[in-house]
Amino acid sequence: MATNDREEPNLGFAQVDVDRLPRTGDPETVYGAGKTAEQIIEILQHLRRAHPHRAALATRIAVNDMDQICAALDAEQCSRDDVAAAVLVGPVPTARGRVGIISAGTSDATVAAEARLTVIAHGSNAERINDVGVAGLHRILAAQHRLDEFDCLIVIAGMEGALPSVVGGLTGTPIVAVPTSVGYGASFGGLAALLGMLNSCAPGVVVVNIDNGYGAAVHAARVARSSDPRSRDQGRAL
Amino acid sequence: MATNDREEPNLGFAQVDVDRLPRTGDPETVYGAGKTAEQIIEILQHLRRAHPHRAALATRIAVNDMDQICAALDAEQCSRDDVAAAVLVGPVPTARGRVGIISAGTSDATVAAEARLTVIAHGSNAERINDVGVAGLHRILAAQHRLDEFDCLIVIAGMEGALPSVVGGLTGTPIVAVPTSVGYGASFGGLAALLGMLNSCAPGVVVVNIDNGYGAAVHAARVARSSDPRSRDQGRAL
Amino acid sequence: MATNDREEPNLGFAQVDVDRLPRTGDPETVYGAGKTAEQIIEILQHLRRAHPHRAALATRIAVNDMDQICAALDAEQCSRDDVAAAVLVGPVPTARGRVGIISAGTSDATVAAEARLTVIAHGSNAERINDVGVAGLHRILAAQHRLDEFDCLIVIAGMEGALPSVVGGLTGTPIVAVPTSVGYGASFGGLAALLGMLNSCAPGVVVVNIDNGYGAAVHAARVARSSDPRSRDQGRAL
Amino acid sequence: MATNDREEPNLGFAQVDVDRLPRTGDPETVYGAGKTAEQIIEILQHLRRAHPHRAALATRIAVNDMDQICAALDAEQCSRDDVAAAVLVGPVPTARGRVGIISAGTSDATVAAEARLTVIAHGSNAERINDVGVAGLHRILAAQHRLDEFDCLIVIAGMEGALPSVVGGLTGTPIVAVPTSVGYGASFGGLAALLGMLNSCAPGVVVVNIDNGYGAAVHAARVARSSDPRSRDQGRAL
Amino acid sequence: MATNDREEPNLGFAQVDVDRLPRTGDPETVYGAGKTAEQIIEILQHLRRAHPHRAALATRIAVNDMDQICAALDAEQCSRDDVAAAVLVGPVPTARGRVGIISAGTSDATVAAEARLTVIAHGSNAERINDVGVAGLHRILAAQHRLDEFDCLIVIAGMEGALPSVVGGLTGTPIVAVPTSVGYGASFGGLAALLGMLNSCAPGVVVVNIDNGYGAAVHAARVARSSDPRSRDQGRAL
Amino acid sequence: MATNDREEPNLGFAQVDVDRLPRTGDPETVYGAGKTAEQIIEILQHLRRAHPHRAALATRIAVNDMDQICAALDAEQCSRDDVAAAVLVGPVPTARGRVGIISAGTSDATVAAEARLTVIAHGSNAERINDVGVAGLHRILAAQHRLDEFDCLIVIAGMEGALPSVVGGLTGTPIVAVPTSVGYGASFGGLAALLGMLNSCAPGVVVVNIDNGYGAAVHAARVARSSDPRSRDQGRAL
Amino acid sequence: MATNDREEPNLGFAQVDVDRLPRTGDPETVYGAGKTAEQIIEILQHLRRAHPHRAALATRIAVNDMDQICAALDAEQCSRDDVAAAVLVGPVPTARGRVGIISAGTSDATVAAEARLTVIAHGSNAERINDVGVAGLHRILAAQHRLDEFDCLIVIAGMEGALPSVVGGLTGTPIVAVPTSVGYGASFGGLAALLGMLNSCAPGVVVVNIDNGYGAAVHAARVARSSDPRSRDQGRAL
Amino acid sequence: MATNDREEPNLGFAQVDVDRLPRTGDPETVYGAGKTAEQIIEILQHLRRAHPHRAALATRIAVNDMDQICAALDAEQCSRDDVAAAVLVGPVPTARGRVGIISAGTSDATVAAEARLTVIAHGSNAERINDVGVAGLHRILAAQHRLDEFDCLIVIAGMEGALPSVVGGLTGTPIVAVPTSVGYGASFGGLAALLGMLNSCAPGVVVVNIDNGYGAAVHAARVARSSDPRSRDQGRAL
Repeated sequence: MATNDREEPNLGFAQVDVDRLPRTGDPETVYGAGKTAEQIIEILQHLRRAHPHRAALATRIAVNDMDQICAALDAEQCSRDDVAAAVLVGPVPTARGRVGIISAGTSDATVAAEARLTVIAHGSNAERINDVGVAGLHRILAAQHRLDEFDCLIVIAGMEGALPSVVGGLTGTPIVAVPTSVGYGASFGGLAALLGMLNSCAPGVVVVNIDNGYGAAVHAARVARSSDPRSRDQGRAL
Repeated sequence: MATNDREEPNLGFAQVDVDRLPRTGDPETVYGAGKTAEQIIEILQHLRRAHPHRAALATRIAVNDMDQICAALDAEQCSRDDVAAAVLVGPVPTARGRVGIISAGTSDATVAAEARLTVIAHGSNAERINDVGVAGLHRILAAQHRLDEFDCLIVIAGMEGALPSVVGGLTGTPIVAVPTSVGYGASFGGLAALLGMLNSCAPGVVVVNIDNGYGAAVHAARVARSSDPRSRDQGRAL
Repeated sequence: MATNDREEPNLGFAQVDVDRLPRTGDPETVYGAGKTAEQIIEILQHLRRAHPHRAALATRIAVNDMDQICAALDAEQCSRDDVAAAVLVGPVPTARGRVGIISAGTSDATVAAEARLTVIAHGSNAERINDVGVAGLHRILAAQHRLDEFDCLIVIAGMEGALPSVVGGLTGTPIVAVPTSVGYGASFGGLAALLGMLNSCAPGVVVVNIDNGYGAAVHAARVARSSDPRSRDQGRAL
Repeated sequence: MATNDREEPNLGFAQVDVDRLPRTGDPETVYGAGKTAEQIIEILQHLRRAHPHRAALATRIAVNDMDQICAALDAEQCSRDDVAAAVLVGPVPTARGRVGIISAGTSDATVAAEARLTVIAHGSNAERINDVGVAGLHRILAAQHRLDEFDCLIVIAGMEGALPSVVGGLTGTPIVAVPTSVGYGASFGGLAALLGMLNSCAPGVVVVNIDNGYGAAVHAARVARSSDPRSRDQGRAL
Repeated sequence: MATNDREEPNLGFAQVDVDRLPRTGDPETVYGAGKTAEQIIEILQHLRRAHPHRAALATRIAVNDMDQICAALDAEQCSRDDVAAAVLVGPVPTARGRVGIISAGTSDATVAAEARLTVIAHGSNAERINDVGVAGLHRILAAQHRLDEFDCLIVIAGMEGALPSVVGGLTGTPIVAVPTSVGYGASFGGLAALLGMLNSCAPGVVVVNIDNGYGAAVHAARVARSSDPRSRDQGRAL
Repeated sequence: MATNDREEPNLGFAQVDVDRLPRTGDPETVYGAGKTAEQIIEILQHLRRAHPHRAALATRIAVNDMDQICAALDAEQCSRDDVAAAVLVGPVPTARGRVGIISAGTSDATVAAEARLTVIAHGSNAERINDVGVAGLHRILAAQHRLDEFDCLIVIAGMEGALPSVVGGLTGTPIVAVPTSVGYGASFGGLAALLGMLNSCAPGVVVVNIDNGYGAAVHAARVARSSDPRSRDQGRAL
Repeated sequence: MATNDREEPNLGFAQVDVDRLPRTGDPETVYGAGKTAEQIIEILQHLRRAHPHRAALATRIAVNDMDQICAALDAEQCSRDDVAAAVLVGPVPTARGRVGIISAGTSDATVAAEARLTVIAHGSNAERINDVGVAGLHRILAAQHRLDEFDCLIVIAGMEGALPSVVGGLTGTPIVAVPTSVGYGASFGGLAALLGMLNSCAPGVVVVNIDNGYGAAVHAARVARSSDPRSRDQGRAL
Repeated sequence: MATNDREEPNLGFAQVDVDRLPRTGDPETVYGAGKTAEQIIEILQHLRRAHPHRAALATRIAVNDMDQICAALDAEQCSRDDVAAAVLVGPVPTARGRVGIISAGTSDATVAAEARLTVIAHGSNAERINDVGVAGLHRILAAQHRLDEFDCLIVIAGMEGALPSVVGGLTGTPIVAVPTSVGYGASFGGLAALLGMLNSCAPGVVVVNIDNGYGAAVHAARVARSSDPRSRDQGRAL
């Protein structure tokens, strides 16, 4: 006598909220952690059928599953990013606005790559500025002139998480800070960077969960795709 | 023999960064906590002289000092908000864009008021939607139709901090969540609300420090004043 | 010379409190974590002999041990739930009252399944309402009319753990909240959800340990099996 | 120029959700912490007018405000409890079911008194068993025979919070545990008791926030007032 | 060119403090965690040569290394305890005094076994009372008459760690409490039990680190081997 | 209508467990924190009547209440300690055994004084060794020869709490460590000292709650008054 | 009968370790927190007598006690710093080496002042660079050319504590970072800054306790007064 | 269509800041954790080409990769330390000054070895004093006469981390404390040792992150290589 009552529809193992697009303007995303390749493929195919004109995103895929998932999908429509361990399937919307993705160190590359693909999936342009951690200040200063050219900035750092404070003092562009779990000992899995960013002395820095490149990108893409390009051209002064 | 070496300029007790306006487009703000009425007055007057065409803001003023500070300033140019314990002095910039400030309970009023005055100081319009905590869901649902009309939302809640997740499921407008220290026991001074917001299941929710209505407003005003009004009219769908 | 003094009875490796049934009305449960398949089988058989008229429950069984354990037991009397990794052996008592088990996301399925089997083992009926997380509010609202039909509700959520607060605003049915370890980063293994539920703004929400579907079900079944069915029919108003 | 926009209705300083009674069957409660006597009086009078046939409750009143508040209300309808610093105004519903309130030490008296008045306000009977902490086990054992006579138990303890585990081993009556902030040093304001209760080895113990006698009572009264008296008479065995 | 400067004596990989016996009266103990079987054997042999008349103890040995280590040592002098993953080699001193080792649940068996062998190594008698957790109070009450017969008690419990408080109310015998890492979720690796024991309402309960059966046993054996047997016979009253 | 149901016996405000002396051999102690002078006096008088031949102890008395309390009690039988803010009333039992109380710094004096009076009340001798913190190692080394002369040692330290580890390396006498809240910043109210002592590299160090001089003394006095004086004379070696 | 046994020498209320100067080369310092003006005066006079040729330092004096303490001491030899709430009495040693004290904001002035006076007391020169927080990066960049001129740097910051990382990228001079308790909410009393500094991505940053300007200065002065001036002149390159 | 945009130079997987040497005088170090053997080899070769006259350091190499890495490098110029899991490649600068590396226990050997190789790479001499933990005080006392002969001390300890406090009381040489993750239970991965060292009662102790032998060595080498040898010869007294 089996009592397992999970008599759910075909995709019973996952919540597929196909109503989210009209409600919020954002595509549904498959959070791949803990899901098998088969499950991810099935959900992506379901989402593709529900919204054929809009790409679906899958993040945090097990590295070993990337090939199988991409092979099962329409290759022409499939953008994969192996550093991010993420895949985007279907027609990407016309990009509006510009999001700058700034990362402190090479260890933050995974989070930055996830943010980049998510920005694209959410309808904005993404450009990366890498390896500009505060211990070599000349690097971020060399990029300073570019900071005002974006509609929103995503600033990613682990360890002490100081980069958003420094960037925040150099520009009036809205900033989303992403703490990463890069570090050891008293970093406590990214807690040090998280607390640092929440206490930033630069006004207006907002923060997302540790390693949450996806969440930062959703916010940044929303901001960028609604921005008036003239506000960027005029500088940030009122 | 006194060895106190603090031979600093007149406002030596406070850091007055009059260069911040051209660099970031934002006015300088006096963080009043721990400062005397005399110090706050002196800094505000200094900022008024440096930037006569742009209002200066002072927040977290001791309640008992509000009258003295406002009396010392030019009454015609002085906007005070006693709930926020904040004051705005000088000509406010022409407002662009719209920021919605949504608060869960009456105890969050202080933070909401600080956010409102800060949005105004940073050049955007602020409208409040009060007392729509999730324990009485009909209240936020009654305001649902208004959520898409804003360029950015500030969502304020203490205790479990669930309101941003609910609002995030109802609209694609960018959301800044502010946890407040309202609560007791296992709220640990707002930590419960902070962690809740950082782990929001609604994508794209970004977070600021506990009770930091000011920081949320700086970010939201930057977003709103750069928004293209048409993006608001078209709904959030791409 | 071996000095191991564990001269205990046959089941020395486990505490078998066969006196618990008359004392509390509840069956003994084998907490399977850290036990071998052989140990679990032996305890279950011992409990079956001690109380032939009442089913015994084993939870948190290693996935790979499920087949071996069920094969060793009387198949006709054995209810297994592979999602819960739990098994119920023996005659189930006649169910009294109704427990609703509400879960926020698919990742909470393990906890919900453990709760369901435990409710059955403790003499009440269990019905599940799945995937009604607060980021898509229409889902829980669609189920609102059912909430008053239960004698007790178990509400399960990870991440920010907001669902019990929302449900608590929609019904007067007693609610037991279960935080799950679903999440990452600042969820700190379920701590964020736990704190959120303990600080719920909906009055009367009670909480159990992280992932403790079993404990919530014991409480809920006790409440439901003692409920007067008329109180359910009359609605919650006094 | 004053910019304070709080042009709210008369009770703008407080959220008065007069719709809660039909929705959940529970009366509205005024959480008095941080409110003036005048505010509490005004809200209570408003609630009395909205629901003349149902008593309203105010908790966590400043000790010095108790006299003023009670003097302003109709004395015949006003039940005050000075230990709880709470007041109940208006006709109390006919009590159904029985809630037992068990406290470990005299320092827990405030929480126990708040729980008692809240149970009454929510339509059940409340009886207290005081000073039965586990360091003198004979005391709770002397009360053991009474434990099965209740429909729900509220068990209150500070310090290590062990009492619910002991009570949970003696009866099958549903138990709500309340940790209190009684203690010092490594009690961390009640955290030790909270964690202890969440990890109780007695199955089915559910927990509320530190010092939250009110929340425990709302849950317990809901359970007790819906209980079938016969389940109590038959003992807990199925 | 190798620069590794660890030119230490033969046992350079381990600190062998052969002076500890005369200084404190206690034997040296090898903390086996992180050491290879070969290293443990070598240290034990070294200690045996230094103090041929006194047994040496090795704890926290990898389970798979137990056979190899015992095979390498003089079988007649070797006491092994596989539950404790510990071994005692050499002549055990004549035992003085009596230590009672009380454990709450079967999962605490490892810690209790480590405590037992350590007590023996440190010159006292050890007797165990198992599986007397507070959720089934009749079990510890059944053993109550024995509590006064010991010179020191070691009380071991995980989860909420309530057992020492209950035992502390039943006897005046000195009590050392050992929290264990048994539990999950909000037990935080034994933190809940540790905090509970530190806040015990029973006076005089002292505590050691999580899972530290060794440390508790060293203290208890010191107390017991110096006790006057008459104090035990006279009961605890002064 | 007053509903306050606290119809308790005369001393209803406090738990007076006069049965504790025969059960554990220890006197009842009044924990004075949060109690009025009148309440403390009444309890002490009650305890004096219940056990005229045994002194009662009151600790953590408000400094300003010391005079009033001592004036109300029989002066000849009243030992007061103003540093400890504690008082002992009635005939002290004949002291057996010796407890050494070692404190690191002058700021630990309050805890040391509480421990001293408690040891006396519990029937042992107390001697203090003050101001021997590890930053001036010559001080504790100068007292080293005395360490073996005690039956139990109480070692008190704040800040990093290193003193018990050092003392534990110098003697085999049983040691109870007391962390104090002396410190600031990352001492987190004594947490640093508490964790340090729990992780002591000296075997056999047992620990009590922060600032809990009372608890350490109860344990130490129990150990000392049961010790065989010959074990002290023979040194610690087996 | 008074039992207070504190029969200590004249300065029994404080530990006066007059041996510290020859042992470590550092003067004794009176930690004034929790001491009365009379006690501080007495200790300082005692230290002056013991070491007439070396100044003694007192820190963390209550603001209201500064006048009384300085009046009681030899005015010609007394250096007071009211911002630091500290006083230095007696002949200051000839300064060797140079310590730079860099602070992020005006709120850090107290800690910076304590560090400055402590450096002087410990025999080195102190120069301050104020208000160079990272949110206005031009300020620290303007001081960059001076950083190599010091033998040791003390870098002080609250909130996110990012300044040491930035300074650490600009110079090879040894850096001691001091986190301050400046901040609110998720700064948790300076914890955020402390963790940030411990996780600094700039190599070689060492850290002291929150607000511990004194400790940083002792270390920095030791480094500076032993430095070879030529190493400063040659730059930091090897 | 692959969208991976990481079009970086050859060493795109790692940040190679070849400008650091002239800016700070320190060599670049490869933090090997999470890098493949191939990546580490490539970076080291790149650094060797950029600075042929200065050795490059790689730390935290996977144990299994040590042989492959050393085989790929010029054997004559390659110093490997297998305990540290680190390698130094290229000509080491002429050592100036002396750094003493003191470790408490054998488990701290990894951190001590990393510190030793880092000191050499940064241009100073390193000498180790091993296994002098405070539980056997005679060991550090035997080395006391050597403490003043160093220009800087690195003191390494896990568990309670008391050794820096003891060393700090014996010498005036600057001390850098390194907490290690050695311990279990309430050591919380080195947190106990970290907090202990931050709260050291010995003045002037500075601290680095848990297990951060590298960071301590960078600071210590900077201090030592700039020290005037005469300051060492004269003792520490001013």
